[in-house]
Amino acid sequence: MNYTAILEDIYHQVKPLLTQGQITDTIPELAHISPLKFGMAVQTIDGSLFQIGDAAEKFSIQSISKVFALTMAMQLEGDNIWTRIGREPSGTAFNSLVQLEYENGIPRNPFINAGALVVTDMIISHLGDARRSLLDFIHKLSDEQGIDYDHDVAHSERETGFRNAALANFLKSFGNLNNAPADVLGAYIHHCSLSMSCVELARSSTYLANGGKLPWNDETIIAANQAKYINSLMLTCGTYDSVGDFAYRVGLPAKSGVGGGILAVMPNEFSVCVWSPGLNPSGNSLAGTKALELFTTLTGISVF
Amino acid sequence: MNYTAILEDIYHQVKPLLTQGQITDTIPELAHISPLKFGMAVQTIDGSLFQIGDAAEKFSIQSISKVFALTMAMQLEGDNIWTRIGREPSGTAFNSLVQLEYENGIPRNPFINAGALVVTDMIISHLGDARRSLLDFIHKLSDEQGIDYDHDVAHSERETGFRNAALANFLKSFGNLNNAPADVLGAYIHHCSLSMSCVELARSSTYLANGGKLPWNDETIIAANQAKYINSLMLTCGTYDSVGDFAYRVGLPAKSGVGGGILAVMPNEFSVCVWSPGLNPSGNSLAGTKALELFTTLTGISVF
Amino acid sequence: MNYTAILEDIYHQVKPLLTQGQITDTIPELAHISPLKFGMAVQTIDGSLFQIGDAAEKFSIQSISKVFALTMAMQLEGDNIWTRIGREPSGTAFNSLVQLEYENGIPRNPFINAGALVVTDMIISHLGDARRSLLDFIHKLSDEQGIDYDHDVAHSERETGFRNAALANFLKSFGNLNNAPADVLGAYIHHCSLSMSCVELARSSTYLANGGKLPWNDETIIAANQAKYINSLMLTCGTYDSVGDFAYRVGLPAKSGVGGGILAVMPNEFSVCVWSPGLNPSGNSLAGTKALELFTTLTGISVF
Amino acid sequence: MNYTAILEDIYHQVKPLLTQGQITDTIPELAHISPLKFGMAVQTIDGSLFQIGDAAEKFSIQSISKVFALTMAMQLEGDNIWTRIGREPSGTAFNSLVQLEYENGIPRNPFINAGALVVTDMIISHLGDARRSLLDFIHKLSDEQGIDYDHDVAHSERETGFRNAALANFLKSFGNLNNAPADVLGAYIHHCSLSMSCVELARSSTYLANGGKLPWNDETIIAANQAKYINSLMLTCGTYDSVGDFAYRVGLPAKSGVGGGILAVMPNEFSVCVWSPGLNPSGNSLAGTKALELFTTLTGISVF
Repeated sequence: MNYTAILEDIYHQVKPLLTQGQITDTIPELAHISPLKFGMAVQTIDGSLFQIGDAAEKFSIQSISKVFALTMAMQLEGDNIWTRIGREPSGTAFNSLVQLEYENGIPRNPFINAGALVVTDMIISHLGDARRSLLDFIHKLSDEQGIDYDHDVAHSERETGFRNAALANFLKSFGNLNNAPADVLGAYIHHCSLSMSCVELARSSTYLANGGKLPWNDETIIAANQAKYINSLMLTCGTYDSVGDFAYRVGLPAKSGVGGGILAVMPNEFSVCVWSPGLNPSGNSLAGTKALELFTTLTGISVF
Repeated sequence: MNYTAILEDIYHQVKPLLTQGQITDTIPELAHISPLKFGMAVQTIDGSLFQIGDAAEKFSIQSISKVFALTMAMQLEGDNIWTRIGREPSGTAFNSLVQLEYENGIPRNPFINAGALVVTDMIISHLGDARRSLLDFIHKLSDEQGIDYDHDVAHSERETGFRNAALANFLKSFGNLNNAPADVLGAYIHHCSLSMSCVELARSSTYLANGGKLPWNDETIIAANQAKYINSLMLTCGTYDSVGDFAYRVGLPAKSGVGGGILAVMPNEFSVCVWSPGLNPSGNSLAGTKALELFTTLTGISVF
Repeated sequence: MNYTAILEDIYHQVKPLLTQGQITDTIPELAHISPLKFGMAVQTIDGSLFQIGDAAEKFSIQSISKVFALTMAMQLEGDNIWTRIGREPSGTAFNSLVQLEYENGIPRNPFINAGALVVTDMIISHLGDARRSLLDFIHKLSDEQGIDYDHDVAHSERETGFRNAALANFLKSFGNLNNAPADVLGAYIHHCSLSMSCVELARSSTYLANGGKLPWNDETIIAANQAKYINSLMLTCGTYDSVGDFAYRVGLPAKSGVGGGILAVMPNEFSVCVWSPGLNPSGNSLAGTKALELFTTLTGISVF
Repeated sequence: MNYTAILEDIYHQVKPLLTQGQITDTIPELAHISPLKFGMAVQTIDGSLFQIGDAAEKFSIQSISKVFALTMAMQLEGDNIWTRIGREPSGTAFNSLVQLEYENGIPRNPFINAGALVVTDMIISHLGDARRSLLDFIHKLSDEQGIDYDHDVAHSERETGFRNAALANFLKSFGNLNNAPADVLGAYIHHCSLSMSCVELARSSTYLANGGKLPWNDETIIAANQAKYINSLMLTCGTYDSVGDFAYRVGLPAKSGVGGGILAVMPNEFSVCVWSPGLNPSGNSLAGTKALELFTTLTGISVF
């Protein structure tokens, strides 16, 4: 299937929405991006790539990195992960401490900040250098060695990310971090600062649409059922406190970030990445969500 | 595809689990059912029926009725529903009042009790007699006129269901019921008391797998996109506070009830209903959940 | 000590505040009172009475009735009360259901609505007719037979008090009511509808300042230590979610009501009642709180 | 009045209770104290001192230091304090983050950890060296230059106090700390590590019973009404989530610490300090609470 005309139609329809979102103010370094940026890329598992707009421009992937970190943790620990992290939607804000207190330091899922901190802690315990190892992993997934962290973004987040520091110390107080809070936080912040384009992100996540294997060389990243598990977690927990609304409107497993990116997967077909910096009140890209909604409507493809 | 052998394999595998669940004690009339009951039925949209065990025996469908009530409300009100009910997973118990207070009387979704009470209120406002109209609707969906309420169960629930009475009054205090709390509660309790078999439930829900139409006569119940919406809501909100775990293990949109039934849908393929009275700590049928997990594993069919 | 000049000074100072409060809208029948009403009465334990303004005009005492109901329950059950009700400030709104859910149906204290419903339930279990018995009790405490319920207020509250109905059913669902929710609610609403003047309220509560005895005939209402207990409960739990602020500013045990009345006690000295219908955001009389603050400042008398 | 015989009676009565409490495990350095320690000292404002048991032995005063830090902040900022801290009981655990999130980073009162961190932040902003300045202040209040921090306790708390680190970062994320979280935390932990005896604590707090002045030289520490304010805050917020129970049983303004100390004040009469390391489930000294209850019962002196 050729998605070129559909992508053009989508771009045309979402243009008026680009200025309606709110650019994140949680990370000063990200505050000055132009709200008019918009890119979208579809990578099919049979090797076709479709793109439009700023699809080749790098942006801060932020929480989308949680998908790749989780994949690493599943490689390293398998189902042991679930003794320290739940897999339920949180029903609260992505950085809330309330649920964590009521549930004794067990984060609700690996896609809220607290859960990703525990995931990062697992990676450190196994591999030591969690920054380097995630970067190597992304290089393999994307088949692209030039991808790197944006150290200015990481620095900016460290200077202002007191709530994440609170979460890390809170987790440690419950005994759910094995490494020092500052070390876990440092690696986590770097993971979030990864700078990638829509094309790179779509390519890096094709293993989720392809039963856990890289399509171009058939290398197994994770088992087929583990890929399904990650897709199910994206659908139920991947888009902050609006997973229900997102599933209703878009109908694809997805993970979003405050940088304005959203990565979505259609099993056995393709992965798709959209980027537009303006966010809706739930913290997901406003025009990006609409673009994906249009995509599943116009193609008639969704998991439901 | 012929599912007979798979159903037999499943029945064999789950038999040892039948006594491990806990039969609900929230409704005295349901407390005395045998934990050894197990039935499962698959109804494909092309008209094939596969069944095993006690699939033809009627049981109390309880919260599964919320799917049918929601369908009626979508017929009557369309997207206006969402001004009075959210569509996000609750992250709390199915009958919690906490979230309702924090969110000013707007239930998180139509599949928790508070949400279903608002749905019932909508039906009463449009049609007056919500008991009769839901029953008529089920007769049409199932093509089976003999289905009826179990008035003993309804009576038992009314005598002991003080928390539902609290919810109804609480909703009214926020102005989110237009009718008298006692009237809404009465209709709601009757809906829950519907007595149906796995075969009847699977058949009654084929419209959700078939783009909103009854497969046998092509009658449109709801629009195709509305059927998708309901499927997405079942996946993100249908199995109490374990939707993430359920999606992870089973990977199908589903709605469960404390009577031990679970209804699941595979879009464009089939609907499936399983019944086993023993519940897991989340309130979903323990053996029923396992049976559905085995079903998607053995068939290789799921939405992910 | 002669408080006449001080009361006059207070009246002068609070007059500009009378229109700054908000008259309650929770009970329609109370919504039409003039905000300019202001009365204050001091009844010393040695028999002197000082009053000013509308101190002889009857108003709806609402939650102040909880003090008298608690006194009855302590007569009937002694310390057994505390197996079903806590004695800690709630840290939440007076009619919140959140805490009740987290703490399994045990209200935080007898001065929030849930606690008073349990107190009322105790009175019904012992005496049957809780309406009549509280009225008889007030007649004895005030030495005034003409005091009665305002049935219009009670009716108005029943028609609109869905949150209290929710609380009663919620308590019943936890097994913390022995009688039918509707019966407990009916008696509770009547207690709240008591119509009394500042003079009558000050007189009715002198037993709390006088070691549990009526000053004029030395009749023991409750033991001296029980009177101290009630005073301590008023100080820590008597003025909704602003007990700390009230203790800070006024420094006397007190109980307020949404009708605009506040009853306060200075042990071994006097009881004092003030009435002004306009409420502050915490639900306590705005001018009434200021009047009591001025009273303890000008007299130099407080418990601290 | 001579309290010698009463103190002897109390010591006799509480001896069997000494082993019933639980020594704190939150600070490893405090875990090895003998549960049989018990001391009590009464310092009257007219200069008499009564003591029994281990009243002259130093212990870790922990949260009792919050009274002295608050006094300093009131000297420095007056009522401006209350723009950044509330004065209501929390209704939750002393180190809960839940309320802080719901109330946007404004701690409920200065006696929970979050509130004391903000108080410490104020002292740093005014005086720079908050460790030194509090120590100087205690030397003046106690007229005793030898009092010092226990650096082993401070070190032990820093190594393990991840929840306090979470609170400090959380407050900073809401903009309610002006200094670096690590600096505020360091000073706060030192304040808690003050090592003082019952005699020293009783003497250091006589200004609260004496209208804000040191009895021995009439020096004004704070205004008389400010002393009343602190007493009222101790009564409504000083003993964790059991202020209601404590007021009910003891009836004095008080502040407790996890080291097993409790400081209480009877305005215009005396201050009293008791120490016994075993805690009740609320975190207050078990035998210490009983000793104070006996003291107010046997002397007939309380604020109610």
